[in-house]
Amino acid sequence: MESMVLELGYALDTFYFLMCTALVMWMAAGFAMLESGLVRAKNTVEILNKNALLYGVACMVYLAVGYNVMYPENPISSVIPGWGFLLGEDNSLEDIMAGEDAPYYSNMADFIFQAVFAAATMSIVSGAVAERMRLWPFLVFAVFMVAFIYPVEGYWKWGGGFLDEMGFQDFAGSVVVHMAGAAAALAAVILVGARKGKYGPNGEVRAIPGANLPMATLGMFILWMGWFGFNGGSELKIANLEEANAVARIFVNTNAAAAAGMVTAAIFARILFGKTDLTMTINGALAGLVAITAEPLLPSAGLATLIGAVGGLVVVCSVLALDKLRLDDPVGAISVHGSAGIWGIFAVLLTHPDATFMAQLIGTLVTFAWMFGMSFVVLLVIKAVMGLRVSDEEEADGMDLHECGMHAYPEFGPEHVKK
Amino acid sequence: MESMVLELGYALDTFYFLMCTALVMWMAAGFAMLESGLVRAKNTVEILNKNALLYGVACMVYLAVGYNVMYPENPISSVIPGWGFLLGEDNSLEDIMAGEDAPYYSNMADFIFQAVFAAATMSIVSGAVAERMRLWPFLVFAVFMVAFIYPVEGYWKWGGGFLDEMGFQDFAGSVVVHMAGAAAALAAVILVGARKGKYGPNGEVRAIPGANLPMATLGMFILWMGWFGFNGGSELKIANLEEANAVARIFVNTNAAAAAGMVTAAIFARILFGKTDLTMTINGALAGLVAITAEPLLPSAGLATLIGAVGGLVVVCSVLALDKLRLDDPVGAISVHGSAGIWGIFAVLLTHPDATFMAQLIGTLVTFAWMFGMSFVVLLVIKAVMGLRVSDEEEADGMDLHECGMHAYPEFGPEHVKK
Amino acid sequence: MESMVLELGYALDTFYFLMCTALVMWMAAGFAMLESGLVRAKNTVEILNKNALLYGVACMVYLAVGYNVMYPENPISSVIPGWGFLLGEDNSLEDIMAGEDAPYYSNMADFIFQAVFAAATMSIVSGAVAERMRLWPFLVFAVFMVAFIYPVEGYWKWGGGFLDEMGFQDFAGSVVVHMAGAAAALAAVILVGARKGKYGPNGEVRAIPGANLPMATLGMFILWMGWFGFNGGSELKIANLEEANAVARIFVNTNAAAAAGMVTAAIFARILFGKTDLTMTINGALAGLVAITAEPLLPSAGLATLIGAVGGLVVVCSVLALDKLRLDDPVGAISVHGSAGIWGIFAVLLTHPDATFMAQLIGTLVTFAWMFGMSFVVLLVIKAVMGLRVSDEEEADGMDLHECGMHAYPEFGPEHVKK
Repeated sequence: MESMVLELGYALDTFYFLMCTALVMWMAAGFAMLESGLVRAKNTVEILNKNALLYGVACMVYLAVGYNVMYPENPISSVIPGWGFLLGEDNSLEDIMAGEDAPYYSNMADFIFQAVFAAATMSIVSGAVAERMRLWPFLVFAVFMVAFIYPVEGYWKWGGGFLDEMGFQDFAGSVVVHMAGAAAALAAVILVGARKGKYGPNGEVRAIPGANLPMATLGMFILWMGWFGFNGGSELKIANLEEANAVARIFVNTNAAAAAGMVTAAIFARILFGKTDLTMTINGALAGLVAITAEPLLPSAGLATLIGAVGGLVVVCSVLALDKLRLDDPVGAISVHGSAGIWGIFAVLLTHPDATFMAQLIGTLVTFAWMFGMSFVVLLVIKAVMGLRVSDEEEADGMDLHECGMHAYPEFGPEHVKK
Repeated sequence: MESMVLELGYALDTFYFLMCTALVMWMAAGFAMLESGLVRAKNTVEILNKNALLYGVACMVYLAVGYNVMYPENPISSVIPGWGFLLGEDNSLEDIMAGEDAPYYSNMADFIFQAVFAAATMSIVSGAVAERMRLWPFLVFAVFMVAFIYPVEGYWKWGGGFLDEMGFQDFAGSVVVHMAGAAAALAAVILVGARKGKYGPNGEVRAIPGANLPMATLGMFILWMGWFGFNGGSELKIANLEEANAVARIFVNTNAAAAAGMVTAAIFARILFGKTDLTMTINGALAGLVAITAEPLLPSAGLATLIGAVGGLVVVCSVLALDKLRLDDPVGAISVHGSAGIWGIFAVLLTHPDATFMAQLIGTLVTFAWMFGMSFVVLLVIKAVMGLRVSDEEEADGMDLHECGMHAYPEFGPEHVKK
Repeated sequence: MESMVLELGYALDTFYFLMCTALVMWMAAGFAMLESGLVRAKNTVEILNKNALLYGVACMVYLAVGYNVMYPENPISSVIPGWGFLLGEDNSLEDIMAGEDAPYYSNMADFIFQAVFAAATMSIVSGAVAERMRLWPFLVFAVFMVAFIYPVEGYWKWGGGFLDEMGFQDFAGSVVVHMAGAAAALAAVILVGARKGKYGPNGEVRAIPGANLPMATLGMFILWMGWFGFNGGSELKIANLEEANAVARIFVNTNAAAAAGMVTAAIFARILFGKTDLTMTINGALAGLVAITAEPLLPSAGLATLIGAVGGLVVVCSVLALDKLRLDDPVGAISVHGSAGIWGIFAVLLTHPDATFMAQLIGTLVTFAWMFGMSFVVLLVIKAVMGLRVSDEEEADGMDLHECGMHAYPEFGPEHVKK
């Protein structure tokens, strides 16, 4: 009887974890739709390929290497991944009856939940380098990113490394996932340069409108929905009163921050530009989500609303600032995940009793330095070996024709694609 | 041991509620995609903004005010919403061990489930006034709707008010949510008037085709999926045999009604027009869903099929009738949610032993009168203060350019957008 | 107390089943988006109608007839479906306390989970006959398919029939669902013939590009997400340690196979064609999913990766081979579901101790013969009575105009649609 109850709890926790995994996996579709809507028609097939394939590469590489690097002590890791032995044995009845420290969900569920987080980190990069970074060099970078760069940093906080011991607080990854991805994206943006025509010789910033805004909006909604799994699953447990209340509170706060970020950014854009810029609406929601990710449990719903609202202001300012700096990020990924992520990590100080300004600062700086530095070096090597950027002719014609041999919308528009 | 089992049940019920919440939140994306597919390209960015922002506004306002109005006795309501105190404490172990009337899921989960319902009610309005009602006046209306108009009416039935005491039966909201939203939409449609060119001087009704029917179809599928949460979650409990069977039956009936509504409407349209009109296929499915919402538990699967099928007939007739009345509803929202909702509320009489014709009639009339009347008055005030409708020039150019400063599909079509 | 625990387990298993049902239902949207993206603009409304209506027809017919044929011994089947009695009583407390063979989830949940599988089988057919098979003859075929053809074959394996007794192993339906659907699709493709212009007089194969590749990619992501329910739900139980571990492992393997199939197909296409063909990326992922479906539990994650990777190679070769044979399958459905399904069924031999080559072979051949033969006969009768294919003029103009009276994208493109 006691074992039946323990097993039930284990099953519920595992099921909860798997549902959250499905929601986070779904975020891969969200990134793909968001980015495919915000690029020009001629670069759409390529960005779809990038988003789909980076998810595939990330899952494969994290299985073979990344998970072992990030969680060296987990029972299903194997230091030398062998054939048929990439993941080890799962928990037994004895394991889960071991008392205090007993596992309460399947190790396999833990693996796949972590894997979709690794993929999400990489998804952040693809948008920032859209419309000019070549497909396969990007995927080679994804291999290094998911095998090594992200897992080492992830280990520092979530695998029991020094940032965790130092007291750095980051619940679901405002910095560990989002700012980390943005730091890698920044390195890539600096190395590949801006799109032709984005910045004029006299400092003009030219808008390059996305080809399909309903798709971009769909991407936002998918990401929002997926974030319930991203933050809600990061509680890691639901099968008792306290944990169930915690997960419910995380849902409330995650939703409140997204809503507030969206509305605030839209109002702010309306005031600044006189128009309700839909891309700011979208990025405001995402910024709210990123901002609450560092601590979605402790704030009251009212405070979560405030944290999200500030995230919405931050992202609008950041998008404008990056354009001043001539850092060309077609979808605003660095602003959404980086700037709002930094705001989120410091917002933890508002509620977490053990968080300190210094620990949050050091965690952020160390993570940034590692992610930016390692990405820069790896990308530099890839640039030397394969090249990173398409030729001017390819960029003018569109990457779809040259990289993928096809058009995303072959029948739409009189001549937007070169046949 | 006993507390462990009780806690497990509490956790399962909470998790079930949260998954249903995610599905209902997802319906916001469904409305957005449905409506963005059914309007013209030049008004697409605006309708996307409306759908996204109304969801955000609804969540914020329902948190601050609406939930307290609708459920004044709920433990996490606070009459005076204070900073950091917008939602109160959640259940304790003592609470859930209190026997008969003990809570069996997190209050936070209850809040967010109710919040996404409030947003859904408002989503119904946006489609009906598409292509001519201005964005920010619409959002101001959303504030009043979610703070006050909808919660008062919701309180009458679900908060323990007089409609509930009278025996009015509406399981998940055919009237409380759907017809309520449609009544508000009708008031708005009357006040803003028809789109230019929709009705000719000699009584002609001119079709204004939607720009992107795959998007509209996607919206239907999203709404269908989300409805499993909408109706399934309205059982409020799943953690014992009887409740689990009930939720499963609700899934079966919800799906059966949607299927039958869709197929029936498509056949009916084929007979009437000689063509299989996809918008009728879509609205038939939604009408089936709305119709079964008032009582998705008691009918057999066969009867649910019949209820949905009649819903499919009702929506086709209603769409044609509204055009005769020159009530311009670009997406058919009033027909889907209003007409099929009314059919649904009376279909409860087929199976519910305690339902009476008079109670259903009074509930419907009172709800309609309140929603229509209050919406009319509030919109009239907004009209006087801010104006409701875009200028003729803006309407001709498209709202996207003037309200949002951008185009949804800038590269498609030779000249459908004015640059 | 014991009954409370048993009921909790029953509730968890039922809830898990219902969530998996929602995910599999969502696959209907995946097929719809995939196919609507891969056809030309002028045939898009029709394929959307086909996908939506086939799901509706399948759900209705499976309720009335198909489920009873496939599972004659299930307690809620009724041999003579009577009004209000299409599904019988659900489990009682006595039932679930009956020990060893006691049911552990709601019969209603079982029905709807099976129903969405039947719809998925039919969805496979629609893509293969896109752009030339008429809508209503297709839906008439769907009636026969879901009432009779698929359920008989399904009974042989899952209803306790001779293939099951023979030791044929097919966990979630690489053959029972996917190859079965592909066999029916092949019969239909042979009977309706290739699209005009697909094959030149001198053996040329002409690419007919799809109109909206972001939609097709979205379809892939939806199917991927839905497959967690398709394979994960086929474990049928989650509420104890062993079953929870099993479902988690199925999630890991399903995801690994999809990732590997996608990446492998993309690399293979890049090598063959010099371009990264997005349709191969998409179909590679789906082929990986189909391949692992026959046995997603027993392989290690590394082996699942390999099985998926081979699936990715198989689908690319199969697409090329079918074009050589002048079998025109606009979306690659026969290759994805048929060829990869056959690979998957034999890959079971790698891990399943009770699987034999002969049983897998016989199961595959018998299933193919039945599905192909019966579909061929039924389609032949429908052809004689109603006709299967649109006229040459209708095909040239596009099916949307003639069958549905509307265009999917009326504003895009200068003249891709005939007004």
